[in-house]
Amino acid sequence: MTDSSETIVALATAPGVGAIAVIRLSGPDALKIANRVFKGKDLELMPTHTIHFGTVRDGETILDEVLASLFIAPHSYTKEHVVELSTHGSPYIVEQIIHLLIRNGARAARPGEFTLRAFLNGGLDLSQAEAVADLISSDSRASHQVAMQQMRGRFSSQLQELRTQLIHFASLIELELDFSEEDVEFANRDALNSLIVRITTVLAELIHSFELGNVIKQGINTVIAGRPNAGKSTLLNTLLNEDRAIISEIAGTTRDTIEEVLNINGVNFRLIDTAGIREATDTIEAIGVEKTMQKISQTSVLIYLFDVLGLSASEIMEDVTRLYRPGIPFIAVANKIDLSVNNRFREIKLPADVKVIAVSAREKQHTDELKQLLYDAVTEGKLNTGQTMVTNIRHVEALRRAHHSLQSVSAGLHHPVTSDFLAMDIRQALYYLGEITGQVTTDDLLENIFSKFCIGK
Amino acid sequence: MTDSSETIVALATAPGVGAIAVIRLSGPDALKIANRVFKGKDLELMPTHTIHFGTVRDGETILDEVLASLFIAPHSYTKEHVVELSTHGSPYIVEQIIHLLIRNGARAARPGEFTLRAFLNGGLDLSQAEAVADLISSDSRASHQVAMQQMRGRFSSQLQELRTQLIHFASLIELELDFSEEDVEFANRDALNSLIVRITTVLAELIHSFELGNVIKQGINTVIAGRPNAGKSTLLNTLLNEDRAIISEIAGTTRDTIEEVLNINGVNFRLIDTAGIREATDTIEAIGVEKTMQKISQTSVLIYLFDVLGLSASEIMEDVTRLYRPGIPFIAVANKIDLSVNNRFREIKLPADVKVIAVSAREKQHTDELKQLLYDAVTEGKLNTGQTMVTNIRHVEALRRAHHSLQSVSAGLHHPVTSDFLAMDIRQALYYLGEITGQVTTDDLLENIFSKFCIGK
Repeated sequence: MTDSSETIVALATAPGVGAIAVIRLSGPDALKIANRVFKGKDLELMPTHTIHFGTVRDGETILDEVLASLFIAPHSYTKEHVVELSTHGSPYIVEQIIHLLIRNGARAARPGEFTLRAFLNGGLDLSQAEAVADLISSDSRASHQVAMQQMRGRFSSQLQELRTQLIHFASLIELELDFSEEDVEFANRDALNSLIVRITTVLAELIHSFELGNVIKQGINTVIAGRPNAGKSTLLNTLLNEDRAIISEIAGTTRDTIEEVLNINGVNFRLIDTAGIREATDTIEAIGVEKTMQKISQTSVLIYLFDVLGLSASEIMEDVTRLYRPGIPFIAVANKIDLSVNNRFREIKLPADVKVIAVSAREKQHTDELKQLLYDAVTEGKLNTGQTMVTNIRHVEALRRAHHSLQSVSAGLHHPVTSDFLAMDIRQALYYLGEITGQVTTDDLLENIFSKFCIGK
Repeated sequence: MTDSSETIVALATAPGVGAIAVIRLSGPDALKIANRVFKGKDLELMPTHTIHFGTVRDGETILDEVLASLFIAPHSYTKEHVVELSTHGSPYIVEQIIHLLIRNGARAARPGEFTLRAFLNGGLDLSQAEAVADLISSDSRASHQVAMQQMRGRFSSQLQELRTQLIHFASLIELELDFSEEDVEFANRDALNSLIVRITTVLAELIHSFELGNVIKQGINTVIAGRPNAGKSTLLNTLLNEDRAIISEIAGTTRDTIEEVLNINGVNFRLIDTAGIREATDTIEAIGVEKTMQKISQTSVLIYLFDVLGLSASEIMEDVTRLYRPGIPFIAVANKIDLSVNNRFREIKLPADVKVIAVSAREKQHTDELKQLLYDAVTEGKLNTGQTMVTNIRHVEALRRAHHSLQSVSAGLHHPVTSDFLAMDIRQALYYLGEITGQVTTDDLLENIFSKFCIGK
C-alpha cells in the first residue's frame, strides 16, 4: 500500500492559481530532502511547529521565496516528519518545486496516501479517515456536521464501547471453552442476553440512521410532479431564487452538474423538475411520462403540485393515486391560492400520511411553510438530536453483518447451543465492527478506500 | 485605499476542493479575532512563526480542526499581525470560517490588499509588488525568472543606484541655486555630463529590454504561414506533440484559451496557424487571406513554410515578398525534404536577414534545429546574460519619460542653460524613476495596480 521508508510529496491545496500554494512532504527524509533545496536555515535543527522563511533553489536558480512549516514526528498529521512549503500560488512554480523535491529523493504521493499513513500510524482510525474525505466534499451544514462528528471520532468511540463490552463477554465464553469438561458458565447467560439485546438495538438504530445520513450526505432527491400549468417552474424558481442569493455569495461552491439545489436549514434538497403528468396521447409524450414515473420511483420525497382553480377533486385524487408510494414522504401542494378562495381540496380524502399545504408560488405565499414541511417530512426531527448518523455504505453493510451475527448469538441463547458456537458468532460480530474502524483490514479494502481520495490528502 | 486600522481576511489558496485551504487574516486585530473563534491555545500569548492545532468554533458548533500559523508584526508579509488558518479544503468550510471571522470583526479583503499593505508598510517596493502578480501568473522558465529577479529587488536596486547618483548631483546643483548671485559651479559640468550619458545609456538598455521582456511575459506570437498543403498542420503537430508530452505531466498548467503553446528552452511561443495564402478566387477566401495578413502584421516572428516538391523558385520568391516585413524575424522553412533531394531553393536570393532551414515535418527531420533557430531569432542571445529585463508597460513608460528628461539635461549641458533648468529636469527624471518603485505614487496609480491582483494576495 505505502512503503513508510519512502518520503512522499504532493500539492496539498486546490490546483490552480492562487496567492499561495502549499506543497506537503511526509516521511522519514522529509526534513533532509527539504533541507537540500531550502536555503535560509538548517531545517533539521529547528523545533517542531515552527515556520521559516527562505528560498527554494535548483542549483543557482531561485525557484521561489517560501515559508517552510515543520512538524517533527510524531507531531504531525501522518505521525511522520512533515514539511509544508508555502509557495507563491503559480502552477508553474508548484510543478517545478515538486519535480525538484522528487529529484532530491521524494516520491509523488498517491491519492489519499497522507491520510493512509495517518491511519497506519495510528493518527486516526478508518472511519475517521473516511470522514476526512466526506468533510472535504461536504457542501451543507448537515453533511458538514455529520462528517465532522465522524472525523472527531464519535462514531468510532461508540463502536469501541460496543466492542469492549463484546470482547469482555467473548473472553468469558472462551474461558468456558478451556474448562469445557467441567461444564461451568463464567458468562452469565442472562447478562449476556441483555447485553446482546442492548447492542443489537444500538446497531439497529445506527443502521436505520443511514437512511437519513446517506441522503444528507448526497442531498435529498425531491421530485416535483404535477399536471402542465400547475406552476411547477414558478414554484421551483420561487424556492430557488431566494436560495441562489445565498449561494452566490460563496465563491467556488457553484455546482456544474446539479443546478437546482435548495438548502433548507442546512440540508440540501436536489429539486428535480418533471414533465407534466397526464395521459399520454402519443409516443413521445408517453416516453416523457414514463421518465417522470421513473424519477418518482427513485425520489426520497415527492411534491405533488396542483392548480386549485383548474383541477377537480376527482382529478386530484386520480393524480395522488398514481403518484403515492407508501414510505415515501408525499406533500400535496395546492397552488395559485392568490387567484381563488376555493378550499374544497381540503375535503378530499387522501392517504393519512400525505401532508397538504396551500401556497401561491407566484406571490410567494406560504412557500416558507412548504420548505419547513419538506424539511420536517425528511428529517422527522431526527437531526440535531445528537444521534450518530451513519453515512457510509461500507459502514452500514458492516453494521448489518454484525447485527446478523448478534442475532445468531441471541438465537443461540434462546435455543441453547454450545459455548463455541456463541464464541464464534461473537467473534464474527467483533470482526465486522472492527472493519469499520480498521482494527481489521485488508490491502484491498484500504486500496479501495484511499484511491478515492484526492492527491495531496 | 486601505484603512490600516481594519483587519482583513481572505482565502489565500486557489479556490476549489483540495486537501487543505489557507485563510489569511492581517491587521492590528488579527490575533484577537482569531482568538475569538479558535479553541486550543491563547494565540495572543504565543510567539511569532509558530503553529498551533485547535478547532474553529461558531458557538458550540465545531466548523473545523485547523492549524493556526502566527506571524507577529512586523515579521509578516504585510508587516502587520498575520494569522493563517490551515483548514480542510472544502469550499463550504472555508466560506463558513470566513463569514465567522467577518462576524467577529474582520473585513473581506479587496483584490491585492495584502500586497498593498506590504507595499505601504515598506515590505516591498512597487515594482516588487507588481512582480508578485507576474510571478503567480508566470508559466514558463523565462517569465518565471524575469519575475523572480524583479520580485527579489534587482530592478529596484538598479534604479535606486541611478537615483542616488542623480540625487547627489541634483543637490549640488540646487546648492548652486542658493548661491546663484555668486556664479559658482559646485557640480562639475563634465562629471555631470558623463553621469547623464552613463544613466541614459542604462535607461536605453532597460527600455530596449522591454521588447524581449514583454514577449517573454506574454508568450511570443509566432505565425506559421504558407500555401495550402505546405504541411502547416503536420509541422504544428510535430512541434507541439513532443512538447505536449512534457506539458501533460503538469497538473493545472493546461491553458484553455490558447492551445498551441510551444515551450523552447523555457520560453513560450504561441503558435498561430493561418489559412493558406494564395490569390483569393472568391470573397470568402479573400476574407481568410485578409485575416492571415492581419495576423502576420501583428506577429513577433514569422515562419514561412513551403513544399520543396510543389513550389517553383518564383512562387517562393513571390510569397516571401508578400510576407516579409523588415524587423520581424523571418524563417523560411522548406518542408518535405524526405520526399525530394531538390536543393534549388537554397539558390533563391532572399533578403539577407531571412533564415532558411529544410525539414521534414512528417519524419521529424531537423525540427529540433527549427526550434533552436526560432529561439535564437527571438532572443538573439540576450537571455541568460543576467541583464535586467523590463516586462511592465508602466515601467517602460516611466523609463522613457525619465530618459527624455535626461536628454533635456544633456542638451542643457551642451547649450548651457541656467542651473535651475537643469535642476528641474533632473528632478523630473527622479520623479519618473520614483514612480516605478513607488517613492512617488498616487491613489489612482495604486488602485489601478492592485485592483488587478487576485483576492487573497
